[in-house]
Amino acid sequence: MPEAKTDALCINTLRFLAVDAVENAHSGHPGAPLGMAPMAYVLWDRHLRHSPQDPTWPNRDRFVLSAGHASMLLYGLLHLTGYDLPLEQIQRFRQLGSMTAGHPEYGLVPGIETTTGPLGQGFANAVGMAIAERWLAQHYNRPGHEIIDHRTYAIVSDGDMEEGVTSEAASLAGTLKLGKLIYLYDDNNISIEGDTSIAFTEDVGKRFDAYGWQVIGPIDGFDLEAVDKAIREAQADTDRPSLIMAKTVIGYGSPKAGTGAVPGEPLGEEAVKLTKQELGWPYEEPFTLPDDALGHFRQAVDRGREQQQQWKILLDTYREAHPAEAKQLDMDLSGDLPAGWDSVLKGLFDGAEKPVSTRDAGNTVMNAIAITVHVLTGGSADLAPSNKTLLTTHGDFGFEDEIDHNMHFGIREHAMGSIANGMAAHGGPIPYTATFLIFSDYMRPPIRLAALMGLRVVFIFTHDSIGVGEDGPTHQPIEQLAALRAVPNLAVIRPADATETAEAWKAALERRDGPTVLALSRQNLPVLDRNALASADGVQRGGYVVWEASPQAEVILIGTGSELHIALDAGKLLQESGISARVVSLPSWELFEAQSAEYRNQVLPPGVTARVSVEAGVTMGWERYVGALGTAVGLSGFGASGKGPDVYKHFGLTPDRVAEEAKRVLHRK
Amino acid sequence: MPEAKTDALCINTLRFLAVDAVENAHSGHPGAPLGMAPMAYVLWDRHLRHSPQDPTWPNRDRFVLSAGHASMLLYGLLHLTGYDLPLEQIQRFRQLGSMTAGHPEYGLVPGIETTTGPLGQGFANAVGMAIAERWLAQHYNRPGHEIIDHRTYAIVSDGDMEEGVTSEAASLAGTLKLGKLIYLYDDNNISIEGDTSIAFTEDVGKRFDAYGWQVIGPIDGFDLEAVDKAIREAQADTDRPSLIMAKTVIGYGSPKAGTGAVPGEPLGEEAVKLTKQELGWPYEEPFTLPDDALGHFRQAVDRGREQQQQWKILLDTYREAHPAEAKQLDMDLSGDLPAGWDSVLKGLFDGAEKPVSTRDAGNTVMNAIAITVHVLTGGSADLAPSNKTLLTTHGDFGFEDEIDHNMHFGIREHAMGSIANGMAAHGGPIPYTATFLIFSDYMRPPIRLAALMGLRVVFIFTHDSIGVGEDGPTHQPIEQLAALRAVPNLAVIRPADATETAEAWKAALERRDGPTVLALSRQNLPVLDRNALASADGVQRGGYVVWEASPQAEVILIGTGSELHIALDAGKLLQESGISARVVSLPSWELFEAQSAEYRNQVLPPGVTARVSVEAGVTMGWERYVGALGTAVGLSGFGASGKGPDVYKHFGLTPDRVAEEAKRVLHRK
Repeated sequence: MPEAKTDALCINTLRFLAVDAVENAHSGHPGAPLGMAPMAYVLWDRHLRHSPQDPTWPNRDRFVLSAGHASMLLYGLLHLTGYDLPLEQIQRFRQLGSMTAGHPEYGLVPGIETTTGPLGQGFANAVGMAIAERWLAQHYNRPGHEIIDHRTYAIVSDGDMEEGVTSEAASLAGTLKLGKLIYLYDDNNISIEGDTSIAFTEDVGKRFDAYGWQVIGPIDGFDLEAVDKAIREAQADTDRPSLIMAKTVIGYGSPKAGTGAVPGEPLGEEAVKLTKQELGWPYEEPFTLPDDALGHFRQAVDRGREQQQQWKILLDTYREAHPAEAKQLDMDLSGDLPAGWDSVLKGLFDGAEKPVSTRDAGNTVMNAIAITVHVLTGGSADLAPSNKTLLTTHGDFGFEDEIDHNMHFGIREHAMGSIANGMAAHGGPIPYTATFLIFSDYMRPPIRLAALMGLRVVFIFTHDSIGVGEDGPTHQPIEQLAALRAVPNLAVIRPADATETAEAWKAALERRDGPTVLALSRQNLPVLDRNALASADGVQRGGYVVWEASPQAEVILIGTGSELHIALDAGKLLQESGISARVVSLPSWELFEAQSAEYRNQVLPPGVTARVSVEAGVTMGWERYVGALGTAVGLSGFGASGKGPDVYKHFGLTPDRVAEEAKRVLHRK
Repeated sequence: MPEAKTDALCINTLRFLAVDAVENAHSGHPGAPLGMAPMAYVLWDRHLRHSPQDPTWPNRDRFVLSAGHASMLLYGLLHLTGYDLPLEQIQRFRQLGSMTAGHPEYGLVPGIETTTGPLGQGFANAVGMAIAERWLAQHYNRPGHEIIDHRTYAIVSDGDMEEGVTSEAASLAGTLKLGKLIYLYDDNNISIEGDTSIAFTEDVGKRFDAYGWQVIGPIDGFDLEAVDKAIREAQADTDRPSLIMAKTVIGYGSPKAGTGAVPGEPLGEEAVKLTKQELGWPYEEPFTLPDDALGHFRQAVDRGREQQQQWKILLDTYREAHPAEAKQLDMDLSGDLPAGWDSVLKGLFDGAEKPVSTRDAGNTVMNAIAITVHVLTGGSADLAPSNKTLLTTHGDFGFEDEIDHNMHFGIREHAMGSIANGMAAHGGPIPYTATFLIFSDYMRPPIRLAALMGLRVVFIFTHDSIGVGEDGPTHQPIEQLAALRAVPNLAVIRPADATETAEAWKAALERRDGPTVLALSRQNLPVLDRNALASADGVQRGGYVVWEASPQAEVILIGTGSELHIALDAGKLLQESGISARVVSLPSWELFEAQSAEYRNQVLPPGVTARVSVEAGVTMGWERYVGALGTAVGLSGFGASGKGPDVYKHFGLTPDRVAEEAKRVLHRK
């Protein structure tokens, strides 16, 4: 079969596999695959270096379908090129329990590099992947041994281009000169409300030029040679990320092609028939995969095996020449932490006498960890001096010569989160991010996706309460802890002092199957004397008894973070009044809930119903721990601008108040 | 005094008022006012049309200090030009209980148009203000009667420019050709981590050119005539928003001028002395306001009174020529709703027999409301056909001839929220926004600020549960309701059927002191027969008894939204088993909590401790209503892709399960 004919057949195969699957599911987006199939085909057939039989090959090119609603395009590519995604699963597209969810889900199908659907996320994830690639390359490549050397490709849509997170990530990618990043922009001028001109008339090419990208096109996205040439041009510019502007038609070939009526619904039986006629697809039978097409697509298996084999030879040579580096690379890619890595945390704050904020303690801890865990890499959204997240023994991650650990995300919290997710999904560095807790609101979408994907990302949030003080209500988190605790599979840890901070970091790094939030104080806090109190390693269990006046406590006081000290002081006040209190530190609800009921009942004996919690935030959810007869001391409205201690007093977050409440609930009982 | 000398004195007065206040507070940002003072002075002295003695003058120019950390610049301008902000309050800058919070707070000082601080928000708010201005002008201006005609100015910083929300808002402003929008960009190349080149090397001017803005400069931000000329150029282009790129030096005149060491800390006594020397300010005594400067600034009072007087004359002529329009304009600006406006909602769904989704019901309700409340104006982030938020009797809000009600925000959820806030702060239209509930995560910062400012914005979120179905976990909200309920002063209402949807809209519009979230279903739901069940007006109280098997209920089932139907079915199942249940609809926790304890105890009698709640989301917080002996049926992890009913069944959200749980808790009791 002549080459051009094979190409056309393969593209139709991809298109109608998507159309048939959407039709069969009575749900999904047929329009995007009809428009994107040619460019996706050229990329996957002629350029993408991947190994369908080993989707974990570390040096594979990464491919991100940022337009996740076009999921069937990706499922089609994966099935046709020989990934472990059976046709039966595609026939069960969007059905409960199938591998083929409505949007591509990381971990559900081998070859899906990241979960996409929420627009803009894939765009920014891919930036993170390119960063991880450069990080690994810089650390491990040696002259003659380009052991890490791959590109990151993405297909992005108008919707991605409109989202702010895309602008943030694109600007940073330009600053970092990520030359191996190549995006195909499916520029079809249609979104759900109709023609994009009603809301989106900007000159996208000029905008990306302004970010420092190479902008190629506009080209005809259906002209295979033009797409091919554009990709080659993109590859040739190693100094700038590239955006290929490919004009396409949404729902190409279908009766409603090029209209807003296409995006989100199956075509319908009659329209499917007409589309098949229009595009010269003779198979009425759904899910027909012509042998010639399948045969051609499946060449990817051998091609990929061959590419990977060559790489293995390269790696073997490297392993001989640089055995220590090769061993370290293996470990980095495995995600394992070195044995005994946490020895650096032992006794880190022994004998500490001066109060220290948990953000400062966090800095001490991070820098200790960096000695044994060199993959720890990240930065702040322009608040490093406040977040205290600089790794002092490391330089900056930047462009040209500066490829080290400290990243500068700029004032771009949303992209920071999404980029960290991309880094974690790529593998190699273990990413951390940092900003004020209040600005966790700017990055909830990537926090959620990290939790959904089960990625190990450490989200550091300092200035975690009204203790922020003078900056006032706009900068004082009130509902943020509650809102983060609501996210499934996200561990939120709010350590009470330096010693708990070390334990919190330990828990975060050892948590491989999901992200962790560390909520750290701006203000100084006493370092608890662990000789007099229980060991801070109780943090690993989420909550523990830190002190009690006697084993027969009448009342339980529960605190987190800076408010644990209020609870402890209240406990002593009660003791002076002849009331026996137990003080529980509960830095992480999620870690605590993961414990056995037996342990939880030891810490919070069901028989002791007089309980008071204290936390500088909304009390929502605390009912779980204080019960119907207890009370939660917290805030019911926004904060106030003033000196931190004044603000605490103003809102009644004091030992006196907590002791009073304890007496009240005891009385009530 | 020669003019140039007066200008210089006034600028120094502004600068050192800020420096002294920060120093006095031992907290704040002196660097930004030192750099921004000249441009702010030129704008306020020569261009801004405002009336310090009447900050509510509807046709005043709006001024937004998007760089809210420079709050002292704004407080200085307000005090010096004669607003009701006494010097004593500036001397109590950032202290508890003062008017001068760390960041400018809407409502705390007359003349503050919006709360700023979280970067990017002010930028987007101002876009909303310019939209509101155009909306009012288009509705009310008549030939010869340009009754609404003002500009919106903002000072924005590097930090604003890096935030994604700014990109979104700027792109939309360009599309809408908001020619009366004029931004001064304080381009000082410094952010907290140091020189912006480490993270922000893009060509901002080119980027804004790509958005369709007029880009002026770069100019020297300290050259008063250059600033003046640039503002005139900006005013002259009425077709495009304008960005004036003004090069300045952060912390100008201070020893650390132009470095990252300046942004967030007082200068210190010694540096203050040196800065005063450097800039030729002879007053060591803090808070010195030279008479010449104060006298010059205070001319703003008479100038503003005169401008307002002229406008009043214009308005009087208009009132004579167009009395009906003038009366309507008064009402629009007052924020009052027409008497009896809600009569259109009476019986809207009487006799409805076919199930209808609450998003569809919402459309019916909105279109009914639009008959009496013509200020209802808004749109969706490109999901109007799915959100069902089009006002069918109205056209589009766009540029040129199309100035009507239906806005097209594009796929820009974050800017949509911030723009709506700006519209509400401006006054006139009552804004609503719409997207899927899952994407509330993209717009939490403006939702929070609407709540903090007490703005009437209606945030519509459809596709409010796993009932979304096939789109899968990325599109199924799980923790979003909980996360929204955590926000202080935000009313979250999740109506159970069409009749509750009408009541929810009524509550939202009548709530003048804060925003409301409406969570609406994608899937069809039975319209409850209010002859057999309690009236839906119980929604106004947040929660009510919708049905009970007998007045002596043994168990209480509580549901919200689509799950109320599950609770009702479970109630019937229990009745068949001889168990007497009460079913409570609890569409809004916030409205319910605002009721008297007496009412709440009527609905949820403390004596009935066997309680089951059912809601398709995380159960966090439900402990408050089900108590220690009850149980909450919900979700503990992310959703799944599949047909809606299959997904409900999969997660055990069924009448059978709820009935079972009820029996279990009864037993437990």
